[in-house]
Order: sequence, then C-alpha cells, then structure tokens
Amino acid sequence: MHTVFAAGSSAAASASREDAAARVAIAGATGYTGQELLRLLSRHPSVSLTAAMSSGQTGASTRRLPGLSRMWDGSIVPLSHDTLKNDADVVFLALPDAAAAELAPALVEAGVRVIDLSGAFRLRDDATRARWYPETHKLPAGVAYGLTERERGAVARAQLVANPGCYPTATLLALAPLVEAGLLVANADVIVDAKSGVSGAGKTPSERTHFSECHGSLSAYGVFGHRHGAEIEQGVGRQVTFTPHLVPLDRGILSTIYLRVAPGTTEEALGDIYEHAYNGATFVRLVGSALPEIKHVAHTNFCDIGWRVDPSGRAILVSVIDNLLKGASGQAVQNLNVMLGVDERTALL
Amino acid sequence: MHTVFAAGSSAAASASREDAAARVAIAGATGYTGQELLRLLSRHPSVSLTAAMSSGQTGASTRRLPGLSRMWDGSIVPLSHDTLKNDADVVFLALPDAAAAELAPALVEAGVRVIDLSGAFRLRDDATRARWYPETHKLPAGVAYGLTERERGAVARAQLVANPGCYPTATLLALAPLVEAGLLVANADVIVDAKSGVSGAGKTPSERTHFSECHGSLSAYGVFGHRHGAEIEQGVGRQVTFTPHLVPLDRGILSTIYLRVAPGTTEEALGDIYEHAYNGATFVRLVGSALPEIKHVAHTNFCDIGWRVDPSGRAILVSVIDNLLKGASGQAVQNLNVMLGVDERTALL
Amino acid sequence: MHTVFAAGSSAAASASREDAAARVAIAGATGYTGQELLRLLSRHPSVSLTAAMSSGQTGASTRRLPGLSRMWDGSIVPLSHDTLKNDADVVFLALPDAAAAELAPALVEAGVRVIDLSGAFRLRDDATRARWYPETHKLPAGVAYGLTERERGAVARAQLVANPGCYPTATLLALAPLVEAGLLVANADVIVDAKSGVSGAGKTPSERTHFSECHGSLSAYGVFGHRHGAEIEQGVGRQVTFTPHLVPLDRGILSTIYLRVAPGTTEEALGDIYEHAYNGATFVRLVGSALPEIKHVAHTNFCDIGWRVDPSGRAILVSVIDNLLKGASGQAVQNLNVMLGVDERTALL
Amino acid sequence: MHTVFAAGSSAAASASREDAAARVAIAGATGYTGQELLRLLSRHPSVSLTAAMSSGQTGASTRRLPGLSRMWDGSIVPLSHDTLKNDADVVFLALPDAAAAELAPALVEAGVRVIDLSGAFRLRDDATRARWYPETHKLPAGVAYGLTERERGAVARAQLVANPGCYPTATLLALAPLVEAGLLVANADVIVDAKSGVSGAGKTPSERTHFSECHGSLSAYGVFGHRHGAEIEQGVGRQVTFTPHLVPLDRGILSTIYLRVAPGTTEEALGDIYEHAYNGATFVRLVGSALPEIKHVAHTNFCDIGWRVDPSGRAILVSVIDNLLKGASGQAVQNLNVMLGVDERTALL
Repeated sequence: MHTVFAAGSSAAASASREDAAARVAIAGATGYTGQELLRLLSRHPSVSLTAAMSSGQTGASTRRLPGLSRMWDGSIVPLSHDTLKNDADVVFLALPDAAAAELAPALVEAGVRVIDLSGAFRLRDDATRARWYPETHKLPAGVAYGLTERERGAVARAQLVANPGCYPTATLLALAPLVEAGLLVANADVIVDAKSGVSGAGKTPSERTHFSECHGSLSAYGVFGHRHGAEIEQGVGRQVTFTPHLVPLDRGILSTIYLRVAPGTTEEALGDIYEHAYNGATFVRLVGSALPEIKHVAHTNFCDIGWRVDPSGRAILVSVIDNLLKGASGQAVQNLNVMLGVDERTALL
Repeated sequence: MHTVFAAGSSAAASASREDAAARVAIAGATGYTGQELLRLLSRHPSVSLTAAMSSGQTGASTRRLPGLSRMWDGSIVPLSHDTLKNDADVVFLALPDAAAAELAPALVEAGVRVIDLSGAFRLRDDATRARWYPETHKLPAGVAYGLTERERGAVARAQLVANPGCYPTATLLALAPLVEAGLLVANADVIVDAKSGVSGAGKTPSERTHFSECHGSLSAYGVFGHRHGAEIEQGVGRQVTFTPHLVPLDRGILSTIYLRVAPGTTEEALGDIYEHAYNGATFVRLVGSALPEIKHVAHTNFCDIGWRVDPSGRAILVSVIDNLLKGASGQAVQNLNVMLGVDERTALL
Repeated sequence: MHTVFAAGSSAAASASREDAAARVAIAGATGYTGQELLRLLSRHPSVSLTAAMSSGQTGASTRRLPGLSRMWDGSIVPLSHDTLKNDADVVFLALPDAAAAELAPALVEAGVRVIDLSGAFRLRDDATRARWYPETHKLPAGVAYGLTERERGAVARAQLVANPGCYPTATLLALAPLVEAGLLVANADVIVDAKSGVSGAGKTPSERTHFSECHGSLSAYGVFGHRHGAEIEQGVGRQVTFTPHLVPLDRGILSTIYLRVAPGTTEEALGDIYEHAYNGATFVRLVGSALPEIKHVAHTNFCDIGWRVDPSGRAILVSVIDNLLKGASGQAVQNLNVMLGVDERTALL
Repeated sequence: MHTVFAAGSSAAASASREDAAARVAIAGATGYTGQELLRLLSRHPSVSLTAAMSSGQTGASTRRLPGLSRMWDGSIVPLSHDTLKNDADVVFLALPDAAAAELAPALVEAGVRVIDLSGAFRLRDDATRARWYPETHKLPAGVAYGLTERERGAVARAQLVANPGCYPTATLLALAPLVEAGLLVANADVIVDAKSGVSGAGKTPSERTHFSECHGSLSAYGVFGHRHGAEIEQGVGRQVTFTPHLVPLDRGILSTIYLRVAPGTTEEALGDIYEHAYNGATFVRLVGSALPEIKHVAHTNFCDIGWRVDPSGRAILVSVIDNLLKGASGQAVQNLNVMLGVDERTALL
C-alpha cells in the first residue's frame, strides 16, 4: 500500500516523520503571518511543530484557532524564552520589531536558528538601521538577508535569517538582477510605485484599516519616509523613490518600477537576464510583456515578473506577490527549507 | 454675523433664505451619520446650521472635516448643552444611546425639538425598552417614531422624533402595510433575513469591522438577540425572527422577508396595498417582481421594495435602502422637513 | 526513506507514482471549476493527469494556463470523446449541463468512471429532472449523488457521481442530519436564505457579474425558481423555500436556514446529532453557537456549521463553504478519493 | 428672483423654469456616464431635458431606467439626428469615439452646441489624433478642450467642447500649473502612475471587468500605449510616462505623479502656485502634504490635490477624482454651466 499525503496522515506516519523532523517553534502565532506559518508548517513533512506562542497569552492560558481546526489543532501558549531555547531547533519570530530585536540575539546565542519576520535585522548599515529600527543595537554574527532566490548560500549557513519586507521582496526580485547586470542608466531616477492589500497592515484594527475607510478608496502613504524604501535601496545600492499605496483588497502587492536603460535595449535582453538569474527558481515566474496580476499569485508563494521597454530606453517592470506568503510567511518557510537542506518547495506548492 | 451656506446659492438668495431659516444644531457630527447630516443640511435652503458638535472635542478645541470642505467649512466644536438649548430650534442627536437618553429630555424641556438618531426612544413598551435600552428611564411626552411614510402626522407635531433603526426602516416599510392590511396568515412565522454593509457598525475600528476580516467574508450575528428585532416586532405587533448579516460592502441594507399569505393571494394584491400605502411617497419606489438591489439606492434616500408570491401563499419581500441615508441621516432630514412643514424632498433628491 | 510531498517532486518519484496512479482526465478545464481541478489534481499523488480538455479549443490548437504555471504546465487540448474513453480511468466533467448529459452516459458505457460537476444527473425523480434539466433523458445505472459525507458507500461503488450543487452542499450538510433525526416540526416552513460569491456564476462575463454592477451591491435572484431548490428538496424529502443572493465577494457561500423544532429542544441536542453524523468527517467542522464565517473556509474544502435554538423551538443553522472547493471541485476530488479507496483528504488539506 | 434648488420643485416652479431654460439633449444616455448626466441634469434649474437617446433603442421602442425613477422618469428613445438638431440648444454626446466623430460636426454645423464626452476631439495635433482617433477627420472650428478650471474662457465661447478623459483630468489639474510655472527640471522624466476604478471601463461586460477577475486583483495595462498618455502630453507639452492600473473599486481615480524640481524648492512654493491657479475654483481642493484619498471625492465633482517635495528636488503629486463625475459627466455639466453663463456649481454641489 502506498503512503499518501502528509497533512492529516495517520498517527504512525506522523510518528516516523517526527523522528527526523526539525523541532520548530513560532513566537507570535496569532497574527496574520503567524497563522500562515501555522498553516504551512502543519503540512510540512520535515517539521515537528513544538510550540506556537503569543505574547498576548498569559500564565497558564491557552487559546485555540478555530479557523485552523483540522489543519492544526494545537493550542497557543504564552511566550516563553526558555521553551524557545530548549525545545526548538529553529524559531520563527513573527513579533513586533522591538520584541524581535531583543529576543533573536539571545536565541542565536543559545544555538537556536532564527527566522525573523520583523524588520529588526534587515538593514546592514548601522546608521540606516539606527534610523528605522532603533531598537536593534547590533547585528549578530551569521545574519543572512532572506531573499531566498538571491541569497540561498547565505541562508543555508545562517544562524539568523532576516526575512525581507513584503514591498522589498516584490521590488527587489524584479529590480536587483537588472541593477546587478549593469543595465540601468547611471544617474536616472528609479521610481517604485507599490500597491498593497490591507492585510499588510496586520491584524490590529485602526482607522486606516477600518473597512468603511478602505472599501472604495485608495491612498498613498509613507511618501519619502517608509522604511521599506531603505531596504530596497540597500538591495540595489542606489537611491530609489518608493511610494506605497493602500488598495481595497486583502492579499497581494503589485510593484510598478520605472527606470532607464540604454536606448535600444530590448525586452529580450531583460528576459535573458531574468532567465539567467532565476534559472531553476520555482517561485519566480517570468511573464514578460504579458504583465502579471495579483490574482495569479494570491494564496501562493509565487512572484510573477513582467517588463516592457520602449526604444528610447524607458523600462517598466511589474512584479506581484502575495504579501503574506512570498512577502512574509511563505518566503520564511522557503528559507527554512534551504536551512534544512530539503526541497525548497516543500509545503509551498 | 455668521454666514451660512454658500454653495450654489447667490448671496441674495442666501440672505432671504436665512430670514426664515430654522436654527439647527448637530450633536455628534463627526461619526458617519453626523457627517451625512452635515452634508445634507449644508444644502438645505430652510436651515441655518448654528453648531456642529462632537463629544470628542474638548475645551476651546475645534476641528475641520476636510472631506466636507467646500460643502461645509465650519468647525466642529465641543458638545455644549447650553448652546444646544439656546441657539437651536431643532437639534439632531447622533450620539451613543446613553448620551442621547440623558440629553434629549433636557432639550425637550427647554423647548427645543429633537431628532434622535440613537435607539434610546424607539421602543414604547417600558419592559422591552428596559431590556434593550436600560439608560432610557422614561419616554418624554410628544415622542414620535420617525418612520416618515407611516408617521407623518405624529412627526409633524412631535417634540422628539425617535429616528428608526436602519434594519427596521428597510423591513417595516415592506412588511407593515401587509400586516396592517391583515394579509398575513395568523400564526405563521415571519422571517427577516437582513444583510448590511459595514458602515452600519459605525466609525470606531474593531476586529469585526477590520478590512481584512470583512473583505471576502460574510457572517451572521446577533441571532435571537439584536435590539432591532424588538423594534421590528413593535412595528408589526407580532413575533418576528430577525437575523442580521454583515456583508463586504460599505453602504446599504437588503432585507429579505419570508411570510405566509392566504393561498391564491396574488402579487397584484400586494401591489395594490403598497400603492395605497405609499401613494405620493417619493422615497418609496415599488418595483414588484423585478426585485430591488442595493446599487439602485446607495447614496440616495430611496427605499425600493419588491415582492413575489407563489400560489400556495408563500410570499417573499425584498427591501433595500442606504443605511446611512434612508436608514439614518436621510430619514432624519426627511423628518425635519415634515416638522418644518416644507417639501419633504428638500435637500434629499 | 519515505517520500512525501507530491507536487514538484523529482522525475523519478513521479515515475514511480504513475505506475500505480489512476489515469484521470478533465473535460472543461478552463472554467473556474476546471482550473481548480487542475490545481488540486496536479498535487495528487495517486493521479496521473492524462488530458485537460476544453470545448473552446479546436483542431490541433492548444492553450497554456499561465496562472497555473509551475503547478501544472500541461496544455489544454480540444475535447475528444475518444481520448476520454481510451486514456482515462476517471473523467471529471466540468461542462454545461447539456454537454454533460450527452457525454456522461457514453463514457459510463465505455467503462470509464465519471465525476460530473454539472447538474445533469443530480435529480432522481424523472418529472422534476425533466423540468430543470430537460437535456438529461435518463439516469444511467450506477449513479451516486456525491455529497461525500452522506454518501460514501454509494460514491465508492459508483460509475457516475453527480457532484452536488454549491448551494445544496452548504445547505444539506447542515439540514439533512436534523431532518433524518426527525427533529423538524412536521408542517413548519423551512426557509433557506443563501448568499453566494460571484465566482459561482462562472467565468463568462455578463451584466449580472460585471464588476461595477456587483461591487457595493447585493440582490436576490431565482426566487421560487432556482433549480438548486429542487436539489435541496430532494435531499430532505420536503418542501423548502430557497432564495439565493449574489454578494460582492469572489469565493464562498453562506446559507442561513430557518426551521422549527419541538419547544425545549436544546442546542446540545443538535450538537449530538451533528457529532454523530460527522464523526470522523474531516471536512465538516462543527462550531455550534459560535456561528461560522466565510473567511474561515475560503480556499479550503471545509464546511463549517453553526446553530442556535431558542426555547420556543425556533432554530437557525448557518453553514459556510468555498463554492469552488467543497461546493464543486474540492468535493469532486474528495469523491475521487473515495472512489479510488485512498485517504479522503488526499490533495485537499 | 430665481429659485435655486430644483429637484423636487413644484409643477409651477418647473413650468416657470422651463421658460428660460436651455433645451438639452443626451445622446448615449444609458451608459454609466449617460446615466450620471441624466441624474445631474434632472436637478439642474436652468435646463430643460428634451431628449435622452440610446443607439441601442430602435424604431418606436423606448426604455425606462428604474434606478433613476423619481429623479428622472422620462423614456430613453432611439437616437435621432434630426431631433438633436432641431430640439436642443446643447447636446451631450456620450457615445463611442467613431459615432461622436461623425455626429458632432453635423450638429455644430446646424448651430447646436456640443459637449462631447468621447475622445474624438481632444487631440489638436493632426498626426497624433490620427494615431489614436483615426475616425476623427478634422477638428471643427470652435473646439475647446474642456478642462474647466484651465479653459473657462474657451469653454464659454465654444461650439464644441471636448470633455477631457478621466486620467488626463486628474493628472493635468495637478501637473499643468507646475509645468506652466516653469517649475519642472527640464529633461527629467515625468512619471504618471494612475489607478482607476472599474467603472472607467464602461458598462459593457468583458473578461477584464468580470467581477471574479477584478475582485482581489490589481493589474497594469496600456503600458506605453494608452491614448490618455497622448492627451496628458498635449496638456503639458512634454513627454510623460503614463501607466494606468485597474483597481478593485467602482468609482475613482488616483494619479501619483513623479517629477523633479530644483533642489531646495519647498512645498510652500508649490502651494503658492496652486493657490494662484485655483483661486476661486470650487471644485479643486488643495490638501498639501496631507495627501488626498479617493473616498473624499467619490460621488462628488471635486479634484483633491496633495504634494510632497524632498530637499533634493524629488516631488510627488497625488490627485484624486471620481472618474464618472469630475472625470466625465460632472465636468461636462460644469462646462455646460460655463457655456450657459450660470454659476459653475449649479447641480454639482
């Protein structure tokens, strides 16, 4: 008789699986990214989920997540640094920046590998980081920036993976290979006009994310002052004008990128660069002049990239992701797979 | 001297208008219904808007509403009972139930006429009211239930108009004429399955009204325990099973009503009753078997009513309104028009 | 070492898998349900997908589905009855009723097992079926109604599975166990007020499903005349008043069901009936008085059921599903699993 | 003395109104912009609506628009060139480009003034127009480009007003005053990243505007090839990179504009230019660094403009309108008001 699929598999299969499985814990399991981690990891054949914690729980209190019932039927328990240190090989941090900035170094020191979904460890330059993430005093050794397709080697060896921001993920996957290939005109502006669904703002209610304020509306925010702009600039080593917008949909980011290449550069030339950069990369799909749309990537870990160039050298890139998956929890699990040395697609396709 | 409304009017017309204008104030002007009142009253030719107050403002602080700019450019000032008593002929209360329950009787006593958009004075029966609105100790004399099309005479004479709830407005306009005509089978169930946009929940952010929770979702709430059920039952004098649902749109209510009439009753018979009940009523549009939809009434003060009957006597009524207009501020201004003896449609069409 | 995850597995694993795999084909693979079938079956470890056909393709033409790229990279080919008969053990029909009515019997006769997502074979009574599905001349032998949790035995043996409609799935899973248990008051009305997302209307553009008509709107349709009403009545053996509504969301159905039980019947009593009926049924989640919401089941194969009862015997059931999964393609794959004798959850959790 | 408020006026008032009223007809009254024209003009005190025509009606057929009932209860009649020539002083054309290109010159020749909502007469340069609007053979004399706030004089005298496109309206109102003031760095790129609700695509169903394709999605289109780009370039006399996006909301456009000004230019400097340009312009509201959002202008004729500048001279403008009002029918009525010499705000505030 043949064994089938892992999730919901029999007790016997589960037991055998856990022998070889990595012990994984989640700190911050009740937010949107935390719940996505639970959903993904519960079907991951190489993982034994040892704890799902929330700083909102206290004492002996626990909490169930009915929406995940039958996929993950465990309990959310209070945050415990000791448990994280002792009972996990890998810890996902889906916490506010300040909490992650404090907790991650201690875990690393205790020999636990950490995948941090906050922004605390994304910026390498001390001065820049001090501006945007003042709670992060210094970078521990062994930090990798977890833009998987571009940092596989570093992620594989990392003690601490700084999982990229959602806007930088969508933007850098499209922009970085062209910059790296030297394709951009030197002093021309690079404009990133990004549009995000509302789940990117997290689970805490606010006026900005109130249904009646968002529905039927659209607005720009963070003009000249969004920390993801610094993360994008770090990724390409040049100034970028980054403007995010809030769009009335739940999940997804579309990033429209304007840049200048040498006149006469063809769309094929860009295609060649991308093909080379993403050869074998399952989760980057190149759609060329067809241009991508959010619907094709929502609820998946894909990043779809399209591009157009005109004869005068104006180029427009369009990149889409699901902000909670490739832009957060999906990429975090992809990084886990790289760290564990298993198929990068495990639990993600 | 205070200038009043500028938009579209000539200076001469404005001046002549103000001579005869009723002095009107709003308490609770920054919520969704308060802002709709401002928008409507600012274009009302028989009204001089003397004050727009919010309990959130304090001391000498004032606040502008940029979204209303060029329609109403006044300032929101702190709530002042004295100003309401002294500088207004009519006061709109768009406050929480408890605040309205306290303030309205004092205003009435001071000779000010009140249109209350809260639920505090909607229920006549003391025991029922004590259950749903315990802050309301007694009904002042001269209270009218402001379902305009059915209570014009009482509204015209009222000192205090209890403006109906949004669900009861949509439901009673469809249901009450049939009950009154004796059309319903005596002991059969009356089921009201109502669906509302999210603005009905008001402006204060909550988990329930968080964009990412509402978008792409749908849920029932208040089963067997929503106070609008009591208001509907009062309006028809019999038990009604009322279940509201939250729908991912901003403005609008659709109420589907299931009842039993004598076998053989025709759709024409219902049409005749409605034609008679709403003869000359501009804001009730009868669409018969075509069935109405929210899109046709959103951003208007209309209530569209459709109906279907099968040979066995099953009848289904469908009624739609904009919850912020006919379900709240629009009907409140309609009541004002009746109270002032001006054309009922003024500022509403 | 055991291999687990199927999708994206290595060629070797695929090869070994296909030895034992059922040969499965899809007729009608480009509609919404067809694409969901492709997505689900491409990760199914017991399936070898031999053909994906569309009646819209002609001659030697083929077509790719970019949204499914990396999950399923095959080509859509023209509909070929011969290929379906010769190269498939099981065929999914996601075709219009008339096309399915014609094709299914021929396939069954050729020894191919069929899972039909159309309505052509759902109704057993000849007269009723003649009214709603006049193209279906007779039911082949070996037809099972594929409401999996209630028909496992019949599905396992079936040559032809009539996959249930979306509204009946949501409604019958909640209602049928109570009817079967004799809980309903004999002559009282059963009202089903159902609300569906727009994907239930399929992929062909129409005025009714035009974005600008649906967004911000809500309407009832098919009053007293929707064929899913007949399917629900067949499922419970009594008259049901069924009214569907179109709601501005993409995926999901919420069915609110009103019925009468004996006074004094408790919510626990209903819970006991459900627990017994769905013991071991992974995809039915009982949430009791918490009441379910669409967000919890969208993009899953779950059906969540809640219920409330008042002391006088009024009962309200609320049931939610994803109309494209548990209401169509998900349940179809669940039925495939039962037919193949593999774990019912395969490819679905 | 003239009465102001028209809608709901008594029969007597209507009669007296029509004596002095301009006779106005609409060709193309059943599309989204046509219906908005009907709604606005039905409350316009200086207008007698003599005919509402649709090319879809034929022979003696007429049609009612139930959604407009009680606001406008006339009948839609078949398109008749003779009636337009003989019974109207001003004709609104809300027709496809080709139909408008043919009809407008004939009307102008007959002495009828025309407000054309199509693109047929927007482009002055013959070569450019031949590319985007090949059906338009030549511009009649007396054509004005109807961007009201910037062309009042020309509009007042015009025989034919080419009503601007929705994207150009939002974009040019923000961009043109700065260009005119010489503020832009000479050779720097101007990027216009525009986002539109779906009603901009009109009333005819298509795959692109199918609810299930738009909801929860977002996409760019018309890259390097949208005719509104040519219209924007005409308005500012320089190259502009224009990229429209389709956003899942019904009504509204947000245009984000990236440009370069001299380093050290302040936000106040831009504010001064705007204040000067829009002094007394009711429908342009300047919100400065607060940045505007679609919700504030939906269902109004306002254009809200915000702007941010950084010390290095990067400037970002954000402009929002309701695409069916300020972007089409509202601006058309505003132009009518200018042509008739009545208050520009009539029927619009």
